[in-house]
Amino acid sequence: MAPGPFIQIPSHLKPAGLNGPEQLAIERRKASFDVGQMTEYLYGKEYLERQAQLVELLSKDPALDKSGLNYMGRVEKFRAALKKDKRLAVLAREHNWDSNTIAHAEKLCDLPGPFGLHKSMFLTTLERMGTPEQQEAFLEPARRFDIIGCYAQTELGHGSNVQFLETTATYDEEAKEYEIHSPSLTASKWWIGGLGRSATHAIVMAQLVLKGKSYGPHPFVVPIRDPKTREMLPGCTIGDIGPKQGYQTTDNGFLLLDHVRVPHFNQLAKFAKVDLDTAVYVPPQNAALTYGTLTWVRANIVQDARTILMRSAIVAIRYCSIRRQFADRDAPVFSASGKKVESQVLDYTMVQARIFPVLAKAFAFHYTALYMFQLYQENVSLIDNKDLSLLAETHASSSGLKALTTIEAAEAIETCRRACGGHGFSLASGLSSLYNDYLPNVTWEGDSYMLSQQTSRYLLKTMRSLYKDLEGPPKSFTVDYMRSYLRDPNAKATIEFSGDLMDPIFFIKAFGHRAAWLVKETLELRDGPAKRSWNSLLIELYRCSKAHSQALIVYNFSMAILKDEALNSRPALRTVMQHLLLLYCAHTMHEEGAEFMSSGYITPKQYSLLSTKIQEAMHSIRPQAVSLVDSFAIPDWLLNSDLGSSKGDVYERLFEHAVRDPLNSTKWNVEIDSDVLDMDGTLPQSKL
Amino acid sequence: MAPGPFIQIPSHLKPAGLNGPEQLAIERRKASFDVGQMTEYLYGKEYLERQAQLVELLSKDPALDKSGLNYMGRVEKFRAALKKDKRLAVLAREHNWDSNTIAHAEKLCDLPGPFGLHKSMFLTTLERMGTPEQQEAFLEPARRFDIIGCYAQTELGHGSNVQFLETTATYDEEAKEYEIHSPSLTASKWWIGGLGRSATHAIVMAQLVLKGKSYGPHPFVVPIRDPKTREMLPGCTIGDIGPKQGYQTTDNGFLLLDHVRVPHFNQLAKFAKVDLDTAVYVPPQNAALTYGTLTWVRANIVQDARTILMRSAIVAIRYCSIRRQFADRDAPVFSASGKKVESQVLDYTMVQARIFPVLAKAFAFHYTALYMFQLYQENVSLIDNKDLSLLAETHASSSGLKALTTIEAAEAIETCRRACGGHGFSLASGLSSLYNDYLPNVTWEGDSYMLSQQTSRYLLKTMRSLYKDLEGPPKSFTVDYMRSYLRDPNAKATIEFSGDLMDPIFFIKAFGHRAAWLVKETLELRDGPAKRSWNSLLIELYRCSKAHSQALIVYNFSMAILKDEALNSRPALRTVMQHLLLLYCAHTMHEEGAEFMSSGYITPKQYSLLSTKIQEAMHSIRPQAVSLVDSFAIPDWLLNSDLGSSKGDVYERLFEHAVRDPLNSTKWNVEIDSDVLDMDGTLPQSKL
Repeated sequence: MAPGPFIQIPSHLKPAGLNGPEQLAIERRKASFDVGQMTEYLYGKEYLERQAQLVELLSKDPALDKSGLNYMGRVEKFRAALKKDKRLAVLAREHNWDSNTIAHAEKLCDLPGPFGLHKSMFLTTLERMGTPEQQEAFLEPARRFDIIGCYAQTELGHGSNVQFLETTATYDEEAKEYEIHSPSLTASKWWIGGLGRSATHAIVMAQLVLKGKSYGPHPFVVPIRDPKTREMLPGCTIGDIGPKQGYQTTDNGFLLLDHVRVPHFNQLAKFAKVDLDTAVYVPPQNAALTYGTLTWVRANIVQDARTILMRSAIVAIRYCSIRRQFADRDAPVFSASGKKVESQVLDYTMVQARIFPVLAKAFAFHYTALYMFQLYQENVSLIDNKDLSLLAETHASSSGLKALTTIEAAEAIETCRRACGGHGFSLASGLSSLYNDYLPNVTWEGDSYMLSQQTSRYLLKTMRSLYKDLEGPPKSFTVDYMRSYLRDPNAKATIEFSGDLMDPIFFIKAFGHRAAWLVKETLELRDGPAKRSWNSLLIELYRCSKAHSQALIVYNFSMAILKDEALNSRPALRTVMQHLLLLYCAHTMHEEGAEFMSSGYITPKQYSLLSTKIQEAMHSIRPQAVSLVDSFAIPDWLLNSDLGSSKGDVYERLFEHAVRDPLNSTKWNVEIDSDVLDMDGTLPQSKL
Repeated sequence: MAPGPFIQIPSHLKPAGLNGPEQLAIERRKASFDVGQMTEYLYGKEYLERQAQLVELLSKDPALDKSGLNYMGRVEKFRAALKKDKRLAVLAREHNWDSNTIAHAEKLCDLPGPFGLHKSMFLTTLERMGTPEQQEAFLEPARRFDIIGCYAQTELGHGSNVQFLETTATYDEEAKEYEIHSPSLTASKWWIGGLGRSATHAIVMAQLVLKGKSYGPHPFVVPIRDPKTREMLPGCTIGDIGPKQGYQTTDNGFLLLDHVRVPHFNQLAKFAKVDLDTAVYVPPQNAALTYGTLTWVRANIVQDARTILMRSAIVAIRYCSIRRQFADRDAPVFSASGKKVESQVLDYTMVQARIFPVLAKAFAFHYTALYMFQLYQENVSLIDNKDLSLLAETHASSSGLKALTTIEAAEAIETCRRACGGHGFSLASGLSSLYNDYLPNVTWEGDSYMLSQQTSRYLLKTMRSLYKDLEGPPKSFTVDYMRSYLRDPNAKATIEFSGDLMDPIFFIKAFGHRAAWLVKETLELRDGPAKRSWNSLLIELYRCSKAHSQALIVYNFSMAILKDEALNSRPALRTVMQHLLLLYCAHTMHEEGAEFMSSGYITPKQYSLLSTKIQEAMHSIRPQAVSLVDSFAIPDWLLNSDLGSSKGDVYERLFEHAVRDPLNSTKWNVEIDSDVLDMDGTLPQSKL
């Protein structure tokens, strides 16, 4: 619960001018489409009903109260998150929630807690890699929260390069035990969510050593804390890794293991194992199968990036339509009393140019997330039939999209925060915490700059095979645009007027051509006479991945306009969606203009048409903006923003946020020659 | 002091492989120049001697200890900053520091505290705008810290648009008093540094109302708190505005004034005033004079942005040369024992491409800051002789540079933080706090997106006057490049080979041509048949300002290579500086490539030469990188980064940072059905 208030504000004072709620009401009347219809189109009824029920339940639960979070230090935040994680576990059990409901509740609470990795990586790794006996031993108690687990892969010295992990698991044939050991300081497990103060068990990734030979990293279940006394078990040195930029509510931890022994049974043995009787290593059957899960994880990442864009756009658009600053230079408006009226900040084109692309991108990512979930399903069916043909394409695209969408989502939060001016810097904006907690997405699950190499490797390979046989490779998104390019590498855009930009096909072709051109150029440097090293080409490879990902997003968004019956049967929605598509495509092409021009596909003159079109699209979107963000149906309880709440009582809320700061609860001594600091000494003293 | 340690780490464990200090030693031996010589060239002896003395004194003072900061909540941080501000005030008095030393000490402490605005805006406003009598009454006790002041301009509803402030100061002729009043909730002063919990006095900017007529915002000294009891004075409602993304150590505050009366004497009357006898308004003499101070403030902003770039580059470059990840794909290196050796992260070109431009930009900003200080001096002498000819150019450039350098510095911190991978997210990186505390720079002192309009307005005006008379306007940086452009608007770059890019003159011409072309295009839209509104051109105007600022930075950096004797007489320094210049120019041109190509100045083929040259420059800089950041002479005490410390014992420090987190001081109860959270309940409980 929020503390205070420590100061009383005279209740007769109101904000000057038109107040926020009135302002938003005016904005909402401008919409040319039905918000409810758009919401249902985006999410479907089932999702919205579930969300309404959950918000009703969760937002009233005192254990899940968010109102005090902004005032808390690390320890208090952790305590709040532990409380929340326990409560969610109890609620899930009481209401018998299915996995979708659990995930949905988790997202609404939006507070990464100590059980986060237990509920994701610990459970899923046991499900995927454990034998039925192991699942009985570990998965069942874990599901009941009788044990709390974590997934200990990353080490202090090794993140991305899993093959080089230092921790060893040496098999003792006699005792039929593994000895798990950290040979150095850098071998310490590090960053492991839930490990620092919570977990009783860790799945430790360690180099399996058998008869002096190493077989690479394998997963072992290692008990690390006594569930009752909470003491570290012998040989384990465990702690929280200390404060971070965000994720303060999670106990990311370290773990040093000193010759800790676990039975043979504890090596998760569904795929690879050491035979208990013969002590012979049995390699995994088909590693490709795990790629399926990866696609699913990445589809979720793209969808989460979409939600981040939505939340950022909601706050900036609602606040900027309430906030006014400066009168219009060319055409000042006067009030009844003859005073100049200030413009809504949202009317400034420089503000629109920063936040409307975020709005448009939210829709763009939405369609690409849908596409990826669909791809995941297709892949699952194919793999069931031992058909791995879609796997490489899916993996490549999902890698590039993970990189692109997380980088752009992080950037969008900050863009929208800045558009809120000074008040954007207050935690009351809701965007600062969102930013700090979202940031790790750029780095984890594969550092985005590094991950894009996996995309580009596939792109180079695909073009090499098309060079050998243009008609050979089967149809896929990548093959399609590369083949078009190779058939006519000197193709040029035919647009002449800005109206020509209304055609989604133009953008699909242009983005495909540019991606293929970049791959061709890079391939020449790699395979041609220069024979450039991979490392010297990383910048070019990154650009290939980015261009490919953008082409895919443009394609998926365009396809909705061209083919989505659910959209096309609702002309009001389709019209506004067309403007959003146009803005996304034109804005992205403008930003990447150098590559489109240097490939020769568009001329400087054609390039200059984009600015006009961007301006037009922004103009069309302006009256729809508040309704569009309303249609995202992000509950106020999730948004947790005084600037962006649906009611619009911005200034009243900022005061409310101010007077509850515990800093206001005491008087401070400013005499420079006095050692006394807080005068009544009632404030919390830490152990510092 | 840092808390803990709460956990013991086995002391026999060391990092695997080459340790950090050894690795940095190897890097340092690669330099082709003398670090000490570079440092002295950058700063001069006086600065370095003062810094050494200050670091010796300050870093050992317990009241200024920084080691516990990362673990503190808001209240504790505020307490630490109050302690620091008091101690600095006492030290300044004891040692009789001059203003340069005070400022230098402040920067080394690097902890924005409650007295920050007292020492800057409160004192300087009294100096600039107070009469001698007012200075005696307010400035003298303020200098002794007998009163603590703040500068209350911004309101809840008004930041940038000062003319629309709501607070009124109505003159009562009879009583010879002003009645200061907040007529609405949005009239509340807001964001005012030091106001929340510390200040006894506020300089309140309020609309001066005399005989029913408003004369615009004027400054009034208003006592707001009893210096002894610390109670709010009657009519004042004051508080801290609540938690923010950064600046947690400062009590930004709000202030509502309910018909508060101050004597006539309290209106700062050096420029404008109401005559005491006649009650007639006396307008200010020459407002232009205040622009001098503004240039000085902005020169400092550019210099601070330089220091931010330096600090970011130091952390990323030192850490990335210690961190290793993955073996080289094309040419793996093997250790004596036959194992693949991982590459230093700094060897990856995609890492270089992100952080070396930050390094180069630090030098670029350095020269432009020097130029601005010089311009400030020139202006001061000219203004003394009533010559205002340089004023408009100076003001325009300083506005654009403020916008550009703060945006780029903020971006650089985040770029470097990400380049540090996972560990960059730990507060131990030192970059997260730096980012959160630096961010307001983008918004305050004129929102950067808005401020750039002032630059562009001048640019349009200058081109208009050149259109009228090409030879008329006197020489200035802007006139020079615009005149060159107008004499030959269809000029084209003549470079053919990447070697041609070695000429700084090429970049000076190209950046000037592009800036002038953008201004010409924008002016056409504004003044031509389209007669576009100012608001519809804000995006274009922003680009003009950015292009102008970049042209200026390129010019100043190039001039050092072309003309700076102190540099040119030291060939070792000059050589490395040339590579940095080349990288800065080529990288910036590459980023802005679309404009260079669409202006027709460079062709796609010429554009493609840039990539090659960037790669070459990075290759030349690589062996110099660690020594270059060493030459920035940022003391470890200021840097406050476990990843970037000069010694390089990264992994040991990360452990030290971890084991001191108070979260590690207690055991936590994870049983979901138990209400107990921390098991021994010894941790601080807030008032929440």
